[in-house]
Amino acid sequence: MTLGIKVLDHGKVDLIDAMGGDLDIVNAARVSFSSYQSEMDERAEGLINFLMKNKHATPFEHVTYKFYVKCPIFVAREWFRHRWSSFNEMSMRYYVPDELEFYIPEYDSMRKQVGKPGNYSFEPITDQTTVSFIQGLMSDVYSVAESAYYDLLDAGVAKEIARSVLPVGQYTEFVWTVNLRSLLNFLSLRNDSHAQLEIREFAKAIEEFAESIAPVALKLFRDNGREAL
Amino acid sequence: MTLGIKVLDHGKVDLIDAMGGDLDIVNAARVSFSSYQSEMDERAEGLINFLMKNKHATPFEHVTYKFYVKCPIFVAREWFRHRWSSFNEMSMRYYVPDELEFYIPEYDSMRKQVGKPGNYSFEPITDQTTVSFIQGLMSDVYSVAESAYYDLLDAGVAKEIARSVLPVGQYTEFVWTVNLRSLLNFLSLRNDSHAQLEIREFAKAIEEFAESIAPVALKLFRDNGREAL
Amino acid sequence: MTLGIKVLDHGKVDLIDAMGGDLDIVNAARVSFSSYQSEMDERAEGLINFLMKNKHATPFEHVTYKFYVKCPIFVAREWFRHRWSSFNEMSMRYYVPDELEFYIPEYDSMRKQVGKPGNYSFEPITDQTTVSFIQGLMSDVYSVAESAYYDLLDAGVAKEIARSVLPVGQYTEFVWTVNLRSLLNFLSLRNDSHAQLEIREFAKAIEEFAESIAPVALKLFRDNGREAL
Amino acid sequence: MTLGIKVLDHGKVDLIDAMGGDLDIVNAARVSFSSYQSEMDERAEGLINFLMKNKHATPFEHVTYKFYVKCPIFVAREWFRHRWSSFNEMSMRYYVPDELEFYIPEYDSMRKQVGKPGNYSFEPITDQTTVSFIQGLMSDVYSVAESAYYDLLDAGVAKEIARSVLPVGQYTEFVWTVNLRSLLNFLSLRNDSHAQLEIREFAKAIEEFAESIAPVALKLFRDNGREAL
Repeated sequence: MTLGIKVLDHGKVDLIDAMGGDLDIVNAARVSFSSYQSEMDERAEGLINFLMKNKHATPFEHVTYKFYVKCPIFVAREWFRHRWSSFNEMSMRYYVPDELEFYIPEYDSMRKQVGKPGNYSFEPITDQTTVSFIQGLMSDVYSVAESAYYDLLDAGVAKEIARSVLPVGQYTEFVWTVNLRSLLNFLSLRNDSHAQLEIREFAKAIEEFAESIAPVALKLFRDNGREAL
Repeated sequence: MTLGIKVLDHGKVDLIDAMGGDLDIVNAARVSFSSYQSEMDERAEGLINFLMKNKHATPFEHVTYKFYVKCPIFVAREWFRHRWSSFNEMSMRYYVPDELEFYIPEYDSMRKQVGKPGNYSFEPITDQTTVSFIQGLMSDVYSVAESAYYDLLDAGVAKEIARSVLPVGQYTEFVWTVNLRSLLNFLSLRNDSHAQLEIREFAKAIEEFAESIAPVALKLFRDNGREAL
Repeated sequence: MTLGIKVLDHGKVDLIDAMGGDLDIVNAARVSFSSYQSEMDERAEGLINFLMKNKHATPFEHVTYKFYVKCPIFVAREWFRHRWSSFNEMSMRYYVPDELEFYIPEYDSMRKQVGKPGNYSFEPITDQTTVSFIQGLMSDVYSVAESAYYDLLDAGVAKEIARSVLPVGQYTEFVWTVNLRSLLNFLSLRNDSHAQLEIREFAKAIEEFAESIAPVALKLFRDNGREAL
Repeated sequence: MTLGIKVLDHGKVDLIDAMGGDLDIVNAARVSFSSYQSEMDERAEGLINFLMKNKHATPFEHVTYKFYVKCPIFVAREWFRHRWSSFNEMSMRYYVPDELEFYIPEYDSMRKQVGKPGNYSFEPITDQTTVSFIQGLMSDVYSVAESAYYDLLDAGVAKEIARSVLPVGQYTEFVWTVNLRSLLNFLSLRNDSHAQLEIREFAKAIEEFAESIAPVALKLFRDNGREAL
């Protein structure tokens, strides 16, 4: 296992395992063993490019990845909307973490929303006093919630009830298994300017790992406008 | 649209629309139009029973339901794990609800967890003072979080950041479209003694609506041990 | 039930049932009942257009269709590759049709393949003698296979073995339930110049029915380049 | 690549690649890295057993397999109904195989169907003359179809049309990627006495490979009645 990539204030992405790579896309597309190819070359790259441009998506499903992710609950909620993939998440019905961790945006990612519904954009909040006020307020709610959570447990109530008071800024952990087709769809939507900045930071880390396993496919994904297949 | 079924303190389930019913299971299983059946009878019921016992699941996929659901976020998070179905949820990236609502268990559903990991069970908390203490503590955290949320918005921070402080006990709303096969799988897992009491209350309401559309299939689902197909 | 649309020499597509329409896309996207809309207007159309352009695909999943299809097996094999949908097909393990029907292309759709792998195109075969020769040869094989099939049954062999000799040009029948998102993906790939002419004829009939239920969505699908969501 | 397992007269199954094994089920179920386990022991086996008995299916999705399969089209058609998996098949729209191969049952698997709809069973056909007659008849149709196929190509018609005359007993080839949950569902349905003998032979080979990667899970699958999760 690698050391992983740190994301946001307490988050992490790690590639635990993978099956296949660029060549497996090529060999799945050709199927017949008679034309089995054992090294990437220009023709193989051309085939991946052809598959991508023409939305022949199934050969990309034969490359699989398994990730460990630690991210805020509100990020996980967007992530889990990607149904063509597999998740196992830490459950607070049964488990009390040693330490609760919560997300507070750093100065560089503090922002306001401008514009109208359907047409929002974001601008940085640069006033240091405002940033500190916001960070302080978030921190205060997290402290209140954390201490109430332990008080509720002490009062004897079931963990699955006590967790109700914990904010969606809390970090959670999960294992994610996904094939390359579904992963490219994830990157197309989440490593994109329309995505929320926080999930985008995670998507960047995912993209880095994805590329380490299938460099040609990821290069061509970018060359072809980052479109989902 | 019906008036829906109230669930927990502020929740609701409503059946918005449906396609097909018991007869459509039968006709999908038979396919050929020559044997198209236009009324349920004993033989049709026998066929549904046979399909269920033998896990011939696909004919149940031709009956679809569309529900409106309002439930706490921690319930929605379990619900959205059911991937063979479609969800559209209210998004607090763009939308500030007129009123925030939060879940607090009533006296009757206040409980403690007893036993060991892998073997938990639940017992009621009957001491009125303890129950009031727990309800008060939850209510306090919700108030702190709600008022911080509005203060964060007033300070100008983006809605998608401000929502971080809102607890998973907050009510959310979504539309759920699901076919009868996937719905029976949901009922098998969620209207079950191993499910968390809160999602089970919602699953009971879903089951009531499911039965109004396909009464024979739901009756046989119960007669056959409530197993997923 | 309508009378359906005839396709190829013995095929048929029929819309059996549907749930929802254009308005349901809009209301799923808005979720909150407070903004429930009961008639289509320009603003609603604008929203569907926005969802399509930005690949916000989930609201289209709340409209469902159920079709009856009769088509050659080689067409059905391409159709069944669309996994986000439900199929129930006539099974020749258990069922001997009253009449076997087989596909023979008519004069207008008889064609040759020109060009190289990855870059094929098709040109009509206009020579009447050649066309007649091809049709005759296909008809001969079908006759031999059909009569051997009945001879095999007469010899007492199981139906599931006897069917082995029947060609993929044989007509089969199935029920198909699909949501509008998955259906648009089907149309994008199959009512397209790269698709095999035969499945394209079926896709055109499907598109006609799809439009009868959600005319605005289908119009905008065409205006936006017929791309999958 | 191993040499694969031969199935029926010309078929084959081969495991090309895999990701994970028994331990990965355990670690996905536990998620939290703090309890990461690096060797199977009795407690780990107990956990897999618990997951299986209680239909906690998602941890099994983090083990993936990639197979090469060569089987008759009528077997492939049943196989491709398993939608939670990925297929790439040889396409005869573009490709003319060097050699066409067709399925003819051997003496040992020649059978008749007895009983009534919904309650069929199979009995061997032991009369050598009858078996030879059936085999001869199948062989004759295959020869007629094969030679017509090449005549059609010679007459200049597109490959995608010419293939119409080829029987479903023809062998095809595909790559199949599937996770362990979906694979156990496949085994539950297809390595079962209700499945057609031919697909069951393939399912047995798949089960042998599945076990080589996750021996504990497969043993417990059998101990727990071979039920789908």
